[in-house]
Amino acid sequence: DFLQALDEVHPLYGISEEELSSVVQNGIIHYDAVVDEILNDGRLFIEQVRTSQRTPLVSILLHGPPGSGKTALAATIAMASEFPFIKIISPDQMVGFSESQKIAAIAKTFSDSYKSPLSVIVVDQIERLIDWVSIGPRFSNGVVQTLTVLMGKRPPKERRLLVIATTSSRPLITEIEMADVFDSEIRVPPISDSKALDTVIRELKLFGSEAEYRYAMEKLRQAGLTGEGHLNIGIKKLLSVVEMARQEPEAVADRLVQALMQLAPPPGTMIV
Amino acid sequence: DFLQALDEVHPLYGISEEELSSVVQNGIIHYDAVVDEILNDGRLFIEQVRTSQRTPLVSILLHGPPGSGKTALAATIAMASEFPFIKIISPDQMVGFSESQKIAAIAKTFSDSYKSPLSVIVVDQIERLIDWVSIGPRFSNGVVQTLTVLMGKRPPKERRLLVIATTSSRPLITEIEMADVFDSEIRVPPISDSKALDTVIRELKLFGSEAEYRYAMEKLRQAGLTGEGHLNIGIKKLLSVVEMARQEPEAVADRLVQALMQLAPPPGTMIV
Amino acid sequence: DFLQALDEVHPLYGISEEELSSVVQNGIIHYDAVVDEILNDGRLFIEQVRTSQRTPLVSILLHGPPGSGKTALAATIAMASEFPFIKIISPDQMVGFSESQKIAAIAKTFSDSYKSPLSVIVVDQIERLIDWVSIGPRFSNGVVQTLTVLMGKRPPKERRLLVIATTSSRPLITEIEMADVFDSEIRVPPISDSKALDTVIRELKLFGSEAEYRYAMEKLRQAGLTGEGHLNIGIKKLLSVVEMARQEPEAVADRLVQALMQLAPPPGTMIV
Amino acid sequence: DFLQALDEVHPLYGISEEELSSVVQNGIIHYDAVVDEILNDGRLFIEQVRTSQRTPLVSILLHGPPGSGKTALAATIAMASEFPFIKIISPDQMVGFSESQKIAAIAKTFSDSYKSPLSVIVVDQIERLIDWVSIGPRFSNGVVQTLTVLMGKRPPKERRLLVIATTSSRPLITEIEMADVFDSEIRVPPISDSKALDTVIRELKLFGSEAEYRYAMEKLRQAGLTGEGHLNIGIKKLLSVVEMARQEPEAVADRLVQALMQLAPPPGTMIV
Amino acid sequence: DFLQALDEVHPLYGISEEELSSVVQNGIIHYDAVVDEILNDGRLFIEQVRTSQRTPLVSILLHGPPGSGKTALAATIAMASEFPFIKIISPDQMVGFSESQKIAAIAKTFSDSYKSPLSVIVVDQIERLIDWVSIGPRFSNGVVQTLTVLMGKRPPKERRLLVIATTSSRPLITEIEMADVFDSEIRVPPISDSKALDTVIRELKLFGSEAEYRYAMEKLRQAGLTGEGHLNIGIKKLLSVVEMARQEPEAVADRLVQALMQLAPPPGTMIV
Amino acid sequence: DFLQALDEVHPLYGISEEELSSVVQNGIIHYDAVVDEILNDGRLFIEQVRTSQRTPLVSILLHGPPGSGKTALAATIAMASEFPFIKIISPDQMVGFSESQKIAAIAKTFSDSYKSPLSVIVVDQIERLIDWVSIGPRFSNGVVQTLTVLMGKRPPKERRLLVIATTSSRPLITEIEMADVFDSEIRVPPISDSKALDTVIRELKLFGSEAEYRYAMEKLRQAGLTGEGHLNIGIKKLLSVVEMARQEPEAVADRLVQALMQLAPPPGTMIV
Ligand SMILES: Nc1ncnc2c1ncn2[C@@H]1O[C@H](COP(=O)(O)OP(=O)(O)OP(=O)(O)O)[C@@H](O)[C@H]1O
Ligand SMILES: Nc1ncnc2c1ncn2[C@@H]1O[C@H](COP(=O)(O)OP(=O)(O)OP(=O)(O)O)[C@@H](O)[C@H]1O
Ligand SMILES: Nc1ncnc2c1ncn2[C@@H]1O[C@H](COP(=O)(O)OP(=O)(O)OP(=O)(O)O)[C@@H](O)[C@H]1O
Ligand SMILES: Nc1ncnc2c1ncn2[C@@H]1O[C@H](COP(=O)(O)OP(=O)(O)OP(=O)(O)O)[C@@H](O)[C@H]1O
Ligand SMILES: Nc1ncnc2c1ncn2[C@@H]1O[C@H](COP(=O)(O)OP(=O)(O)OP(=O)(O)O)[C@@H](O)[C@H]1O
Ligand SMILES: Nc1ncnc2c1ncn2[C@@H]1O[C@H](COP(=O)(O)OP(=O)(O)OP(=O)(O)O)[C@@H](O)[C@H]1O
Ligand SMILES: [Mg+2]
Ligand SMILES: [Mg+2]
Ligand SMILES: [Mg+2]
Ligand SMILES: [Mg+2]
Ligand SMILES: [Mg+2]
Ligand SMILES: [Mg+2]
Repeated sequence: DFLQALDEVHPLYGISEEELSSVVQNGIIHYDAVVDEILNDGRLFIEQVRTSQRTPLVSILLHGPPGSGKTALAATIAMASEFPFIKIISPDQMVGFSESQKIAAIAKTFSDSYKSPLSVIVVDQIERLIDWVSIGPRFSNGVVQTLTVLMGKRPPKERRLLVIATTSSRPLITEIEMADVFDSEIRVPPISDSKALDTVIRELKLFGSEAEYRYAMEKLRQAGLTGEGHLNIGIKKLLSVVEMARQEPEAVADRLVQALMQLAPPPGTMIV
Repeated sequence: DFLQALDEVHPLYGISEEELSSVVQNGIIHYDAVVDEILNDGRLFIEQVRTSQRTPLVSILLHGPPGSGKTALAATIAMASEFPFIKIISPDQMVGFSESQKIAAIAKTFSDSYKSPLSVIVVDQIERLIDWVSIGPRFSNGVVQTLTVLMGKRPPKERRLLVIATTSSRPLITEIEMADVFDSEIRVPPISDSKALDTVIRELKLFGSEAEYRYAMEKLRQAGLTGEGHLNIGIKKLLSVVEMARQEPEAVADRLVQALMQLAPPPGTMIV
Repeated sequence: DFLQALDEVHPLYGISEEELSSVVQNGIIHYDAVVDEILNDGRLFIEQVRTSQRTPLVSILLHGPPGSGKTALAATIAMASEFPFIKIISPDQMVGFSESQKIAAIAKTFSDSYKSPLSVIVVDQIERLIDWVSIGPRFSNGVVQTLTVLMGKRPPKERRLLVIATTSSRPLITEIEMADVFDSEIRVPPISDSKALDTVIRELKLFGSEAEYRYAMEKLRQAGLTGEGHLNIGIKKLLSVVEMARQEPEAVADRLVQALMQLAPPPGTMIV
Repeated sequence: DFLQALDEVHPLYGISEEELSSVVQNGIIHYDAVVDEILNDGRLFIEQVRTSQRTPLVSILLHGPPGSGKTALAATIAMASEFPFIKIISPDQMVGFSESQKIAAIAKTFSDSYKSPLSVIVVDQIERLIDWVSIGPRFSNGVVQTLTVLMGKRPPKERRLLVIATTSSRPLITEIEMADVFDSEIRVPPISDSKALDTVIRELKLFGSEAEYRYAMEKLRQAGLTGEGHLNIGIKKLLSVVEMARQEPEAVADRLVQALMQLAPPPGTMIV
Repeated sequence: DFLQALDEVHPLYGISEEELSSVVQNGIIHYDAVVDEILNDGRLFIEQVRTSQRTPLVSILLHGPPGSGKTALAATIAMASEFPFIKIISPDQMVGFSESQKIAAIAKTFSDSYKSPLSVIVVDQIERLIDWVSIGPRFSNGVVQTLTVLMGKRPPKERRLLVIATTSSRPLITEIEMADVFDSEIRVPPISDSKALDTVIRELKLFGSEAEYRYAMEKLRQAGLTGEGHLNIGIKKLLSVVEMARQEPEAVADRLVQALMQLAPPPGTMIV
Repeated sequence: DFLQALDEVHPLYGISEEELSSVVQNGIIHYDAVVDEILNDGRLFIEQVRTSQRTPLVSILLHGPPGSGKTALAATIAMASEFPFIKIISPDQMVGFSESQKIAAIAKTFSDSYKSPLSVIVVDQIERLIDWVSIGPRFSNGVVQTLTVLMGKRPPKERRLLVIATTSSRPLITEIEMADVFDSEIRVPPISDSKALDTVIRELKLFGSEAEYRYAMEKLRQAGLTGEGHLNIGIKKLLSVVEMARQEPEAVADRLVQALMQLAPPPGTMIV
């Protein structure tokens, strides 16, 4: 009917510019080679979707601990595609939605994408989209089924789609039997060595002088936070910790060590 | 009443041509004798429905691991029947449906089929149709009961029906007590030997030269992927892996081995 | 009020002729003495209902493995009564019904029966009527309670009722605490000896010549399917297997043995 | 308001004559001294309600195995009171009711009783009123709470009420924490000795001649059904068994023994 | 708005006189010192609410076995306050209410109390208000949360409130995490020694003569019901037992002993 | 549209003055150094939100035993910010709300905050907001998901937000997987040493004379309540206990000791 016709005419494909750039507000710091590898893999999948006849649908999964940078990297890959349709499905957009409203919103994004010859959909934070909580466990099975079906459903003829999903709980994906849907998986690791930490701190200009910087590094060493694998913190939390430390100019190093100890205690630390 | 009368008049039997051919978009590769055996069994069931007086209803189950080709084979058998009514019931069609809408859609397809003297219904991906997830477990009991009753219900006089159901989880069928409904079961195995792999790779023209091809085979051997039973991958995933590998022309063999190792590690492989 | 008055006037008692005869479409084969015993017991219960003052309600339960012929025998007994009201309550009639619609339909059949001096109600496949699935387990408690109450409720003065219920899961009846409702139980066994098998095969004229027949019997013996208790298959599945075998005239015996092995493997058979 | 006023005027107290007498259709056979004791206890409670100032509410519980005669005895006691309000609350009346309709019906009966100076309410088959099934277990907590509150709630000033509840599962009453509500409990035992059996059989005139009768008694002895405690059957089932046996005049004794063995096997009997 | 304004004007504070006095219909018998201690504690809390600036809200919990007199004591304390607002929230008032109707009724009583400078609310039988049953367990979490929040919520400025809650299951209060809400707890014990029993029996004038009385006491001694701690019965049940015994004037003592044995068997009694 | 426009215009940011000051009605007593440390940490977070570019959202968690003063401290920190938008989300406001009304109210507070350049939201008593009860456990998953998403969602450009959440069950936060949302955690301990107790009692002027005071201290010592760690009571309960003791001027010390023993028995005390 008329409304539907209108719907067809409307330039439904588009790019949620603002939303996508908002999630990389703090930029991408190249603290480790793995960052570039992930971005490069992303580029290859973009190419496969653009060119291969046999795989008009490619679905990949970015997984890694909380705050490791999954959403920022997914958005960066998506924007780099320059496809005419780039959308993000995220739990932020669905606060207060009923299960059926969530399902409708998800289904709409996929069916909108089918109107564009080339599309990317970022399905962000699967665990939150499905309302997962491990007590019970409880979750929205309706959203699980919808995502599983849509992320595995070929787009119509002449349409091509890349799905980039993210989750901070890889085991959950197996538990909800969603793993078979993905053509490939990419792990986004946390920051775990002092070289990466060092790169970030310098980039963020936390210390006014080289002396202060060296003093802090010494403190971190004493706290046992600089050995290989002795640190285990996502880039997102690290940014927050650095800003917190910055508040007390006279005690930046102490605050930094203290906050890292609370959030990411090195293995073997006794918590009192 | 009137609406119902209209419903009767309408040529309800028909064939969902497009949908059926879409699921075999990548064709059928005869990589193993079992492929032909399955298609032949299908032909016999078609004949039984067409001719036997005592069995106007025949229900069969295609089961096998994810991506082993069940849907493509079911659709191929169905289309080969050339019956006037051929329909597929699949989860794709029911995204966002409530349980009662799903039940109504399923019941409608069956009752439509009763208007044709000869019909085939493909009931695709039972585990997805019933919204199965093994945590809980949760599933739509309403759909389970509807399918069990309808797949076991004789069509009215003078009507004959072949039901071809598919599932990637045979044990589930026993768990939901649906197994007694089927007159016969056919297993669709994954690709598990190197001869089949070889057939597929050649068919898809992955390598430009015979030398490249031999180099890749050597790599696969070294990775332990070519021994009997050392491989375990559905044709659907294999097609995807091949396309992925094709993206880096300079490293096709390496990408292929790497992707096969991620998706279908040979038994005994340590995952790090 | 008026509608209710109309309802009273309407000749509500009647016989669901078509439905009843449909369930015995393939007739009754007298493959064993137990078949006649069951039919005779049925006749005695009919007489009790017709004549006894103290038991205006008699409820009996036919139970036996899937496809053993329960529904066909129940319908045969019911039709033999020649009572003015004979109805079947079966899951087929209730596809897509909500729980309360099911309860209403069941209650209506019972209250309709109270308008006839003599009635039989066949309550077919209790496990399916209550939407039973053993995972959970899940079932409609509303239907359980309704059936338990109605199958145990005396009809009004001057009214007499025979209830014949069927189930393929006798233990379930105990689990849902329905067993006390029944005045008597009758077991319908599967076919388990070669004499019965022989009777059925001959009746169905599966083999063109006596030689073919003897060859097949030899095959069955070799497969270990003819010893006492080595076979275990309902008459319904056996009919289906025979029709399947008939499809390949050149290999009838092999197909028969193969299908029996798949559906009813003799005890001790390894399944690969 | 007006409707409510109407409600007040209407002679709401009354006696469900027909319903009460229907449950004792087969009379009370005095097969054992316990029968008279129960009826006598009932009379005392009637007197207590009629006369005591401190206990305007008395609630008692009749419990015993299925078919032991609880409902018939409760109705007999109630009718003997000759109170102006005597009502029965039974699951038969509530087939197809939703939980809230059940609660409303129960609450209405109690609030109606408050309009009569003297009332008896029979609350029949608690396990069925609460939709109990032990798998799960499942039951209507709403009805449990309603009954617990109402059976323990003092009627208004100048009003007196006797509640006689029945159940065939005494342990359930403890499980649902309803036991504290009852002022007293009375057990209705099954028939367990041959003298009682003898009394019943003679009363029902099952045998035409004394010889036949002695022959049957001998048979029962041989089957081990006549020793003390070797029989365990409710009067209700016994009546049904006797009628069944009557159907084959030439084999009454055999049928009787056979039916008693099926329904109430003596302890130690092997069931094959 | 207008309706709300009306609501403000209406003299919402008041006393549910009739309801409160109805729960102490049988008066308070001072059978033990603990009875006076409880009433005295009550008076102190009344004073604290009336005078303290820092605790405008005081919530206390009366707990003790079924029928020990909690409701009667709570009502007695409340009435003694002579505050302008005294209301009881009890399960009797909410038969047939949905969860949200219960919550609304509870919330209304509290918000009405906020209009009076001094208020007492008796929250009677928490276990029944929350529809508790230990199988499952099942209960209304909505009512639990509402009570927990309201019994711990400071009334508005210039308003003071005493909450007296009762329960016969103290452990439940911990299980539903409600214990922290109460400022103090008071235990109401059952009658457990023969002196208290003696006081009650005399007060109720059960026996016509001193001789009859002494005979009865001797009987109780023989039954082992008079030793310290050998009795364990709430005052409410005791009143009922006494009335029951009174029914057979010729056998009062025997009936009394028999009823006490059934309801409150001394420890170590075998129940047959 | 118009209504929405109105909504924009309305000065939605504001401060719930009355509500905030009501929760610190009894003031802040500086009984221990930790009180000042907590208030100082709060000031630093306020500064971080006001100044840092990279962390426009800071979420912190105040946790500690019931009544330890979390809500009063959170409100004190919030009010000290002097931000133009300061609101509290508390269970008191949501009595009788359905799950979706709660979610809507929470979401509204957050979206209102986005209209102010600088905001503080106190999310009080998470365990109560989510309707938590550990039996089951049961809770509102909808509220859990809403809070998790909103407390972790960056405000729009140019907007800054501090979230201060409180809970008396820190382990619950891990169980519902909400811990990763918080940038920092602050523990609010109970009063556990006699110096703090001493400070509070003096501040509240419980005793008229120094002699009385010393007598009470001696009593507390005898009861074992003054050793280090021998006391364990929140400031809120302590205030209540002190007021209670005040009621009996002639026995203040005894009442105090008695109440402390009931509410906060020293470790190793036998409860009879
Ligand atoms: N190399 C990097 N990779 C990813 N993010 C980076 C990098 N360098 C800086 N960032 C910044 O770190 C933050 C990463 O947060 P992001 O939300 O993407 O993490 P996440 O893993 O998705 O977190 P969550 O588990 O909560 O979903 C972003 O603000 C981003 O701008
Ligand atoms: N011999 C073959 N048998 C089946 N499919 C084949 C074969 N050769 C090529 N194909 C192609 O492989 C794909 C098989 O995918 P299909 O969806 O049928 O697998 P499936 O087992 O149904 O997967 P799923 O478990 O996800 O339902 C199709 O694209 C089909 O065209
Ligand atoms: N002796 C027999 N007894 C019963 N059915 C027979 C007999 N001989 C032939 N039949 C045929 O066998 C079939 C028995 O199927 P029926 O549906 O009655 O089995 P069932 O036990 O009710 O199966 P289910 O367990 O699926 O409900 C019918 O088609 C009937 O006509
Ligand atoms: N002494 C007796 N006591 C009770 N019932 C008797 C007695 N003698 C004969 N009867 C008859 O036996 C039947 C008892 O059935 P009734 O329904 O009362 O049993 P019940 O214990 O309530 O059964 P259920 O457990 O199914 O509720 C009635 O038909 C009644 O007329
Ligand atoms: N000393 C007493 N204390 C309390 N009640 C008494 C006392 N003496 C007599 N009574 C009477 O005993 C009865 C006590 O019943 P009440 O309903 O208060 O008990 P309860 O503990 O609330 O019972 P339940 O556990 O069922 O709620 C009342 O009728 C009351 O009048
Ligand atoms: N140093 C202090 N810190 C906090 N509150 C104090 C302090 N001194 C006095 N108070 C008073 O103690 C009370 C603390 O109660 P508050 O409701 O804040 O505790 P809470 O930990 O939030 O309790 P709950 O666990 O019940 O939520 C308030 O009345 C407050 O005015
Ligand atoms: Mg993310
Ligand atoms: Mg498939
Ligand atoms: Mg059947
Ligand atoms: Mg009964
Ligand atoms: Mg009470
Ligand atoms: Mg608080």
